[in-house]
This record gives sequence, structure tokens and C-alpha cells, in this order.
Amino acid sequence: MDDAWAGSIDTIKKAKIACNFAMPSGETGKLSVPGSPLYVIEHADDGQITFPGGLPIVDKEGMLIGPIGVSGDTVENDHLAAQAGVNVAGVCDVPKHPWRS
Amino acid sequence: MDDAWAGSIDTIKKAKIACNFAMPSGETGKLSVPGSPLYVIEHADDGQITFPGGLPIVDKEGMLIGPIGVSGDTVENDHLAAQAGVNVAGVCDVPKHPWRS
Amino acid sequence: MDDAWAGSIDTIKKAKIACNFAMPSGETGKLSVPGSPLYVIEHADDGQITFPGGLPIVDKEGMLIGPIGVSGDTVENDHLAAQAGVNVAGVCDVPKHPWRS
Amino acid sequence: MDDAWAGSIDTIKKAKIACNFAMPSGETGKLSVPGSPLYVIEHADDGQITFPGGLPIVDKEGMLIGPIGVSGDTVENDHLAAQAGVNVAGVCDVPKHPWRS
Repeated sequence: MDDAWAGSIDTIKKAKIACNFAMPSGETGKLSVPGSPLYVIEHADDGQITFPGGLPIVDKEGMLIGPIGVSGDTVENDHLAAQAGVNVAGVCDVPKHPWRS
Repeated sequence: MDDAWAGSIDTIKKAKIACNFAMPSGETGKLSVPGSPLYVIEHADDGQITFPGGLPIVDKEGMLIGPIGVSGDTVENDHLAAQAGVNVAGVCDVPKHPWRS
Repeated sequence: MDDAWAGSIDTIKKAKIACNFAMPSGETGKLSVPGSPLYVIEHADDGQITFPGGLPIVDKEGMLIGPIGVSGDTVENDHLAAQAGVNVAGVCDVPKHPWRS
Repeated sequence: MDDAWAGSIDTIKKAKIACNFAMPSGETGKLSVPGSPLYVIEHADDGQITFPGGLPIVDKEGMLIGPIGVSGDTVENDHLAAQAGVNVAGVCDVPKHPWRS
């Protein structure tokens, strides 16, 4: 994206955590603040980014087929752009699972 | 574990910190929030994970023989699964020590 | 700078984040505390420093031409020294942008 | 130290930050919590540890000649042991400086 922040090249790895845990990166971020269950999860997997803009893509069979990550604007706008991308290919939510909470 | 999060491959290194400090990973996590004695310990040893699911295994002689780490469900369930594993081989608590606090 | 902290060699990479996001490093730091939009951005780009002392340099055409970073004193003084450097070559603020928030 | 935590091998790098900034590691830690001037300084210099147990050693001429780091017990005891080591060789405080705050 022209005129995006140079730093966005790497923060786009928010897509990685969206795929790793099948949830929007911003949701993981809410769970990673001090006192929350996933505090410091950013230290795993060579550094993860947990602010909004990364989303999982789930196809019609309920399979997680990959993530999308957008970076370069406010995190709210990044999230909206990522959501638009997901809508083309599927949804964000994995189906209910017999044992996964 | 089928259908576990892909990201769990690396968060399972919570076992490392359980062995490193002979205490459940979640206990270390309580000590690593801002203002607590071990704040930022996650930056040591190439990145440590301090949420529940990692447990030390101590044998009948009171020797720390290794850790167990479980990841892929909620941290509460990960902890329970790890505890079940420990129960097969020993306990989690190291014996009292003459000088270690 | 004679008698500066040895550790300043690396904290000077606060210049990197000033260039990456075209804002003073201290501003990024305010956005990276728990609960703020860029929480944990320090984990991106091989480790970023978000306290004051790093500033972007914007030329007369409004182009971000690079950053300046100062480290070795208090963060307030580091910031002042960096600002003096910027004043020689340009300003810190990028111009308004049609879509960037 | 026999029966010290295995994880102490790496947390002893608290000595590094004591030397880097010529102050006790625990003092740096107080400055690195969210909202404080050196928030996230742990991300510099390949990971720094900022809890107590690292101390600078300053000789009779006021020169910082190196650090000492102790790890393996509570952070309070680690600090006391490090202080005992410093007392053999010098003091912890660098002299007043014409421009360094």
C-alpha cells in the first residue's frame, strides 16, 4: 500500500497469530495483557503481533485455510480491510468443536 | 493433538520454564506481571512462556527429572492434562531445601 | 557521547521505530502500553524501542527522509537533543494524507 | 551454585543491564513497567533482565569496571549476594557527572 508505514512490513505478521490460534489477532491481544490467560504469548513463535488487522479465513467446510493480515493504517481500519478480504473467501469463525474450548 | 492450534507447537515451550524454575508455568506467570519480582522473565532463555500448562516432574527421590507441557486447549485444560501426565511419573513439588527460598 | 551508558548503543534503535511509523518514538510508546492499540509492537521488526529519543525527519517536500536517535541521558534530554538535530534538516511531522489516519 | 534453578543460567544476564546503565538491575526494572520512562527496555541488546541481582562495580577512581550478577534464589537474596561481591571490589554508585542526569 503506497505511503503505508515502513514498519508495517513486519507488523503484518499479525496474520501469523490469527492462523496460529484461529481467532482475530485483536482477540488474542485482549487475552495477552497482564493478568489475562495468554499474557506474554507474544514471546512464542519468534515474536507475534496481537493487535487488530489479522484474521483467520475459514472455508465452507469449516477448514482453516489460512490468514489475512493488513497493516499500514489505524488498527481499526486494518481490521476492516482484512475483514473485506475474508468475506471474499469465507468466514472468520471455525465451527464448534467436540473438545476444544 | 488433532485440531489443536498450530500456534501450540511453540507455546508448548511453557514446559521449559517449568523445568527451569521447578514450578508450574502459571505460577511463574503470576510473578512476571508488571510490579512483580520476575517481571519480564519471558525475555530470558530465548523466550519463555509463562501461562498454565507446563509442570515440573519430581521423582520419588525428590529429583527434578524433567517437565511436561500441554498446549492446544484453554490454559485451564492444558494444566489439567499436564497434571495427569505428572501423576504417572511423580509429583510437581521439589522437597524443602536448606537454603533455597 | 563520552560517558554515555554502554547500553545506549542498542537503545538508539529507537530511531528505527521513529522511521517505521513516522512519529516520535515516545508517541509510539504511549500507544504500546497494555490496553492501547499498539500493545506489544516492540516484538515486531527484531525488537523496537519505544521510549523518547527517536524522531522522524521530514523534508520541505513532506518526504520522510530518515530518522534520528539519541540515547545516553534521560529520555527527556535525549528527545531534546534529537529535536535539535531534526531542526537542522527539516521537521518531524508528515503532511496530512488523503487516507492515512 | 548447587541446586540453583536451571533457568538462572540465563537470567544472570541481569548483570549485563547493570553494566549497560550503571545502576542495579532492579532499579532499571522499576523504570521499565508500563507508563515508566524505560518501558520495554528489555527488548534492547538481545533481551535484558531487569529484576534484582545485577549490580555495577565502580572502583576507587569512580570508573565502572564491570558488573556482577547473581541468580538462583529469591531476587532479594540474589541482590544481597551480589552486593557482598561488590563490597570486595568497590561500590555500586558512579560519581556525579557534569552533564549526565
